[in-house]
Amino acid sequence: MRERLASGPDAIVCKYINQPAIMAESLRSFANMSRLNKVHVLMLDKQRLLDPQSAAALLRGLLEIEKAGPQSIPLNPELEDYYFNVEKKVIDLLGQEIGGKLHTARSRNDLNATLIRMNVRDYMIRLYPMILELRETLLKLGTEHAESFCTGYTHMQPAQPITFGFYFTALAQAVERDYRRLEEAYGRLNICPLGAAAFAGTIFPIDRHYTAGLLGFDKVIKNTMDAVAARDFLLELASDFAILGSTLSRFANDLYVWSTDEFRIIEVDDSMAICSSIMPQKKNPVALEHIKSKSAHILASVVSVFTCLRGAPYSHARDVSSESAHLFWDGAAELEAMVQLLTATLKTLIIHTQRAAERIDVNYSTVTELADYLAARENINFRAAHQIVGNLTGNCISRGLSTRDITPEALAETSEFFVGKRVIVNEELLKVILNGRHSVEQRTGEGSPAPESCRRLISEMTEACREDRKRYGEISDRLREGNEGLDRAVSALLSGTNESRS
Amino acid sequence: MRERLASGPDAIVCKYINQPAIMAESLRSFANMSRLNKVHVLMLDKQRLLDPQSAAALLRGLLEIEKAGPQSIPLNPELEDYYFNVEKKVIDLLGQEIGGKLHTARSRNDLNATLIRMNVRDYMIRLYPMILELRETLLKLGTEHAESFCTGYTHMQPAQPITFGFYFTALAQAVERDYRRLEEAYGRLNICPLGAAAFAGTIFPIDRHYTAGLLGFDKVIKNTMDAVAARDFLLELASDFAILGSTLSRFANDLYVWSTDEFRIIEVDDSMAICSSIMPQKKNPVALEHIKSKSAHILASVVSVFTCLRGAPYSHARDVSSESAHLFWDGAAELEAMVQLLTATLKTLIIHTQRAAERIDVNYSTVTELADYLAARENINFRAAHQIVGNLTGNCISRGLSTRDITPEALAETSEFFVGKRVIVNEELLKVILNGRHSVEQRTGEGSPAPESCRRLISEMTEACREDRKRYGEISDRLREGNEGLDRAVSALLSGTNESRS
Amino acid sequence: MRERLASGPDAIVCKYINQPAIMAESLRSFANMSRLNKVHVLMLDKQRLLDPQSAAALLRGLLEIEKAGPQSIPLNPELEDYYFNVEKKVIDLLGQEIGGKLHTARSRNDLNATLIRMNVRDYMIRLYPMILELRETLLKLGTEHAESFCTGYTHMQPAQPITFGFYFTALAQAVERDYRRLEEAYGRLNICPLGAAAFAGTIFPIDRHYTAGLLGFDKVIKNTMDAVAARDFLLELASDFAILGSTLSRFANDLYVWSTDEFRIIEVDDSMAICSSIMPQKKNPVALEHIKSKSAHILASVVSVFTCLRGAPYSHARDVSSESAHLFWDGAAELEAMVQLLTATLKTLIIHTQRAAERIDVNYSTVTELADYLAARENINFRAAHQIVGNLTGNCISRGLSTRDITPEALAETSEFFVGKRVIVNEELLKVILNGRHSVEQRTGEGSPAPESCRRLISEMTEACREDRKRYGEISDRLREGNEGLDRAVSALLSGTNESRS
Amino acid sequence: MRERLASGPDAIVCKYINQPAIMAESLRSFANMSRLNKVHVLMLDKQRLLDPQSAAALLRGLLEIEKAGPQSIPLNPELEDYYFNVEKKVIDLLGQEIGGKLHTARSRNDLNATLIRMNVRDYMIRLYPMILELRETLLKLGTEHAESFCTGYTHMQPAQPITFGFYFTALAQAVERDYRRLEEAYGRLNICPLGAAAFAGTIFPIDRHYTAGLLGFDKVIKNTMDAVAARDFLLELASDFAILGSTLSRFANDLYVWSTDEFRIIEVDDSMAICSSIMPQKKNPVALEHIKSKSAHILASVVSVFTCLRGAPYSHARDVSSESAHLFWDGAAELEAMVQLLTATLKTLIIHTQRAAERIDVNYSTVTELADYLAARENINFRAAHQIVGNLTGNCISRGLSTRDITPEALAETSEFFVGKRVIVNEELLKVILNGRHSVEQRTGEGSPAPESCRRLISEMTEACREDRKRYGEISDRLREGNEGLDRAVSALLSGTNESRS
Repeated sequence: MRERLASGPDAIVCKYINQPAIMAESLRSFANMSRLNKVHVLMLDKQRLLDPQSAAALLRGLLEIEKAGPQSIPLNPELEDYYFNVEKKVIDLLGQEIGGKLHTARSRNDLNATLIRMNVRDYMIRLYPMILELRETLLKLGTEHAESFCTGYTHMQPAQPITFGFYFTALAQAVERDYRRLEEAYGRLNICPLGAAAFAGTIFPIDRHYTAGLLGFDKVIKNTMDAVAARDFLLELASDFAILGSTLSRFANDLYVWSTDEFRIIEVDDSMAICSSIMPQKKNPVALEHIKSKSAHILASVVSVFTCLRGAPYSHARDVSSESAHLFWDGAAELEAMVQLLTATLKTLIIHTQRAAERIDVNYSTVTELADYLAARENINFRAAHQIVGNLTGNCISRGLSTRDITPEALAETSEFFVGKRVIVNEELLKVILNGRHSVEQRTGEGSPAPESCRRLISEMTEACREDRKRYGEISDRLREGNEGLDRAVSALLSGTNESRS
Repeated sequence: MRERLASGPDAIVCKYINQPAIMAESLRSFANMSRLNKVHVLMLDKQRLLDPQSAAALLRGLLEIEKAGPQSIPLNPELEDYYFNVEKKVIDLLGQEIGGKLHTARSRNDLNATLIRMNVRDYMIRLYPMILELRETLLKLGTEHAESFCTGYTHMQPAQPITFGFYFTALAQAVERDYRRLEEAYGRLNICPLGAAAFAGTIFPIDRHYTAGLLGFDKVIKNTMDAVAARDFLLELASDFAILGSTLSRFANDLYVWSTDEFRIIEVDDSMAICSSIMPQKKNPVALEHIKSKSAHILASVVSVFTCLRGAPYSHARDVSSESAHLFWDGAAELEAMVQLLTATLKTLIIHTQRAAERIDVNYSTVTELADYLAARENINFRAAHQIVGNLTGNCISRGLSTRDITPEALAETSEFFVGKRVIVNEELLKVILNGRHSVEQRTGEGSPAPESCRRLISEMTEACREDRKRYGEISDRLREGNEGLDRAVSALLSGTNESRS
Repeated sequence: MRERLASGPDAIVCKYINQPAIMAESLRSFANMSRLNKVHVLMLDKQRLLDPQSAAALLRGLLEIEKAGPQSIPLNPELEDYYFNVEKKVIDLLGQEIGGKLHTARSRNDLNATLIRMNVRDYMIRLYPMILELRETLLKLGTEHAESFCTGYTHMQPAQPITFGFYFTALAQAVERDYRRLEEAYGRLNICPLGAAAFAGTIFPIDRHYTAGLLGFDKVIKNTMDAVAARDFLLELASDFAILGSTLSRFANDLYVWSTDEFRIIEVDDSMAICSSIMPQKKNPVALEHIKSKSAHILASVVSVFTCLRGAPYSHARDVSSESAHLFWDGAAELEAMVQLLTATLKTLIIHTQRAAERIDVNYSTVTELADYLAARENINFRAAHQIVGNLTGNCISRGLSTRDITPEALAETSEFFVGKRVIVNEELLKVILNGRHSVEQRTGEGSPAPESCRRLISEMTEACREDRKRYGEISDRLREGNEGLDRAVSALLSGTNESRS
Repeated sequence: MRERLASGPDAIVCKYINQPAIMAESLRSFANMSRLNKVHVLMLDKQRLLDPQSAAALLRGLLEIEKAGPQSIPLNPELEDYYFNVEKKVIDLLGQEIGGKLHTARSRNDLNATLIRMNVRDYMIRLYPMILELRETLLKLGTEHAESFCTGYTHMQPAQPITFGFYFTALAQAVERDYRRLEEAYGRLNICPLGAAAFAGTIFPIDRHYTAGLLGFDKVIKNTMDAVAARDFLLELASDFAILGSTLSRFANDLYVWSTDEFRIIEVDDSMAICSSIMPQKKNPVALEHIKSKSAHILASVVSVFTCLRGAPYSHARDVSSESAHLFWDGAAELEAMVQLLTATLKTLIIHTQRAAERIDVNYSTVTELADYLAARENINFRAAHQIVGNLTGNCISRGLSTRDITPEALAETSEFFVGKRVIVNEELLKVILNGRHSVEQRTGEGSPAPESCRRLISEMTEACREDRKRYGEISDRLREGNEGLDRAVSALLSGTNESRS
């Protein structure tokens, strides 16, 4: 294929470009390359661009290689790329007269643009149910802990009491949005470039819709220059991976801090921890550390794909077709690791519900209730109510006291100072107002932490999750059926019962 | 509001945190802050959480400030943030007894989470029609140049002939996908956090749907922790900006290279260029340079938002609420500049059609036709056909010749050497096969460069663009109607004709 | 200057390119532009490239504008950039015959390449002493707290006891390296491109060393293409900013976690915190949040500079000269904020030494001592010693006990189980081994936490800091003297006592 | 080692964390781990922390494993990491009584912190001479092409004539700075953390300087917390890689554009190009595409390291020790590929000197000379001279003419119009002024393009390169001698002639 060039590729080109690329593709693309070749032959046959004998011979050769597996193809870096190695194998097997016809009416440009979409699609089909399982795990934890009371933090300082269930539901809601984004991206991924040839289409009367259909694509990507030049699906998916990665890194960091000896309101299972080589007491929640860190690599993959493509020709070039995907795959692998590690962490998570519940009655996280009470019942404007309680609390804290030490007396005095009237709240009522559980149970608005609100929302979200799983089933069914259709078409052609020839 | 703290903010805090944040918000949020405050008062009134007199007084105060404009609010960095400065103004105007009630049943957390969504929404409403105009400009150029023949490049080397119209259509198709992505993101942006208060909802019986509706939101974001913690819309939009930025940077770089003295197949208008301070002959296409560069800043904004949020608590904190948006706005501004500069460049672009058309008959970009001809008509397998033409071309190039110098004789000899038969193509036919215009006109498949294929696709895409514009109109109408509804509700309350109180 | 072009710049170009660039430069470059112009005139005069009258007139004009200040220059975006606006002002003042000579033997390319180095240098001269102050603050805290015992963490879990002083010294040592890196970069920043003209030098016999010297540069950057094309100093400094930012973000996050209610071993001063608008008890350490977040923007500035320059021509172009610096300045500003906020935080930091010291006697952070004791004194191989103590500790923890509950009895039994011999350590000795303070005091190796080791290292580092301050003083003196030399040369020329003309 | 934990690591932890980390370390760290273990045993022996028999037995075991090679160590992901697998092998070989003593007085924390510095050092030692070879190649090309005249571009438009030699020298100068930066970083890399143990030093009387010396380190990194926490060397080197990558990407893009059919002033060798699978005429300079793209991955590695470390505890944790280096290695590999591919490209580069030289006499790149002439000899102020020539040139261009068509007549008329006097330059002189070669030869200032200036600078730079190579030799000698010293010490101990025991 290098007739126009006077020499083979330089050894440095083989070592640093061809060799690693061919190795990676051999691992990643063998099955899809085979599928694509079979579909292309079927189409050439249907359009009478290939004689029936050649078509059958090519299919038999392709099936034989498929059966022999990826290692049956000798990988020679001097042959530039993986496709040329595969084609060489076909020609070795069938002779150039037949094997040389395989590449009629297409180019490596549209072929590789199609392959990468198929490879990414395979990954997505594996990823979706992992995320669905994570969402289900979160909703299950949400249900189980709808009454596990604990501190809600802002700025990592005790703020107001909530429940663990409410917190898990927040994350489930966030991951639901992240899932939808990944789902919407599928429509822009699953479109077929095949038939664009180098970028200018072909003079052969091919049938782009037929190949697209048999390969499981939703439709063709029309303009043939865009077909080979576009890698926006890599940018979009890398970004969407990073967004889910962002959500999970935040979640992991919360769990990480709450696992410290000082917080100790949750604890990872021993199987998710390591010890130290010298400090015998250590239980280090390293899975959480990896989860929060790995999002960095996904962001890096975003940067790599964008920077490769920035200013690249809107056409085919190695920046576009080859380098742009290099770290994309690393980002994808890291996201999978994050999702799987987090699900495993959650499924075995220990929640110290009692310790967590005890905190909310002493760490001042309920004093907003008192301010709200003053505003709602004592007709003190909210800003003044805030001043009264702020002053009251500040005094207690500086004297080393807890919520329980706030007295009706002190409240009366402070309110007199600020608004000129002694607000009297009896001791029992004050206790109720400042009770953590009571505080949560009052917050019954839509999406609020009260157990009943939380359970209502979980029920809606569980239904949504079920529908997402159903939609996922339809997508994966369609792909399976596509593959089965391909198998049938191949059999038909080989057995001579093929009726598709136009 | 700092009763619990013994001192005001440090001068360093005022200088490096409060001052710049307050200045930025004052420019960006004045109008939406006012709208939000009015809606909140209307809701408090409706839910009887505020007495009618206070509600009316608050609304009158808010209208007065609105009328006096942003500069009527003294900005004091010791008051921590913009909201506290606004509240201070309200209290100064109405007294604490009334003014102090404004903040009932909400927090700065949900307030700021709502404000930023409104501000970003305003930007999107400005951005959408700019992109629509760019798409229309591309489609118009596509139509005008459907028969302007030129070289199509891969690896920046002449590959196969196309038309300028076909190339512009490729870009229009890419930008269409980029637009859809930005459109889909709107649904995840336009959801209302108000009512989440600090993150744990409120004990007051507020009506979240009422406020969401009057503020033009599609729905409420339910879980109240997620409501204040989520900034995925920033991540998603920043990424979507970067994706469009990527497409445009690639386009701009193509135009930039084609504008060089050596290519000179296009030329930017003098109004889009600058000269040199010392080299009098220069015409530098700097707008194109800025377009391709600016995508770098958008990518940087992506990195900034992600890195701020990575590992941040899934709750309210300054990483989340404040720092995460810092460079988001810069990225947004740079994208706007890119779109506007590119549209202006395209509207005045000079295309040297004749020079471009002449190239395709001499730069070997049509020899693939010859290989295809050998495969299709002479029954030579494609791989061999490629070898014949590759060898033939290589010889010509090494002798400094052009496409026109390929002779029937040389073809016959080369084919004999490779496949053992002298393929005879007469001189006239050879000329036709190697003619650039003829090459393009034959490529009539779906999405291919032939003028008729190109026009068919442009027609479909023009229709799609029209529908996108219609959908945009509906969105912006809904927002305008929301604002009008708010004005009516305010008038009704102030005139006592209000009937919304529940 | 646009004679070769048929029209002025498009309104879109003025709005999105010229206007913002001119505004920014007007704020940033007025003083250095003036200095540069004066030096250039002096050199032209010295080399007899300008007649004495014109030289004097130009200098007088430049001094007049300098005195009138930046706002005296009308800013017209149609004049492309800031330099052309300044030149216009000079010509308006002195007439074109004189004013038109200012730009002899130079170009905007070398002028802007020089200006940006001067501007960045100004920033560095401001930054260095800020970092020195931070280092001094850390060393002071190190000294004060060399005996403030506390827990050392790995994986955020209690690991071994240390002192606060030891921890602050670690940070001081890290910041020392970060400072040196910034110092080394100065040598690659402070080299002078002036005289490169557009990039190809000039036919005029200029004196590059003379201008470089008067402008305070260490030397000239020789190859004139490299002189205008190089922006590696932006890449290097942005990276160095990010590295210091990384160190500080890690430090800030440690302080942030240690400030939580649950850890509470340190506390920021009230002046570095904010309260909440609704939760009256809150004391949020927001300065720390900003410090840890701001490093994200610095990283973004790194990405922006790199991505702008990637693949840019190695020559002058707007990617290189203009866009590459856009976010560099933001990164620089954010770093300054981080350093200043952190120093202010440290200067007022409250350390709860007693609470911190109490923890180390109960949180198992001393049990490594016991393993080491078994290995060192009881001749048990370390791996077995680790097993014994690990098992012992695990049992205690699972029963809710603390370090203090480890008994000689339990040790004897566990050791018998693991190594077949009952190791007897009497109760008093066991207490000593497991005592936190004792553990630290034993670690007297170089750089180890024992107070004496720590003080020794602080003393060395204080000396190093003193030398760095001295070196800084020399650099800033040199710049000041350069400016004074320039003033003298201007006076001499104006008073006719100038003897530099060659 | 997991006695304190009730279970082994979860299968998900093994699959996504342990397995990949162990595999990577096994490939990367076998040799250095062995070296480190031997040195540690020698030190323990010298300090009498190990009995002589155990020391000898350990060394013999380590040598045996070293000889058997990395594949002799079974890799079990349940053993957490590579070190534990190595230790297990030692214990299997020597029994726990002996093997269990290997880890005395150290921790995986300092061990891994040391290992990574050794691994990175190995890479640097491989990288330095590759860059030196690139510099030498550039300087050689600079010498060879000091009189190969060609167009110098700004904004990719013809600007002023230069020579290829001058351009290559610019790059050589840039790469020289990039090399120095990498050289300076070595001092911050090559410092030894060993002896820091977990982070708090050890109670054993170890000798940190002895181990540091035998391992080839320049000195110890003192504060022991900083020793395990610091990864600034990764940040610095990744950034320095990216800076060199930036320079090379810019260079590669220039070469890429100059290789287009339209520019065709250079051409890569056939061995650095690929053809197309369908377009037989193609010669695609893909090595250049990969070079310009690969810098994207290096930038991504920068982002990954920074983002991993941002906000990580300043201590030991997996973010710091493990994840931070993940993409660092990818960036390093990509830089190596860039340098090697570029050197290979340059060594075989074809420069079309005649075609390049012809361009400069027609593409208006010499008209600045005319303006300079008017200013220097005709006493026209430069701004007016620029106007005259700009107008003159604009007229010629708009009429499709070239530099050669500028006439004395037109000059006289245009000057009359602008400055009221007819400037007369006779035809011969005008030809000289506008001659490209003459233009370059006049530019004899320091670092300017004239052949003599260029050669002078190359000679200085060649000397600098020689000195850098000498310094490199000293560094690599020192490391080799370190290894030999280690071998001698091991032999001495094993043969009983060891005299180092203190």
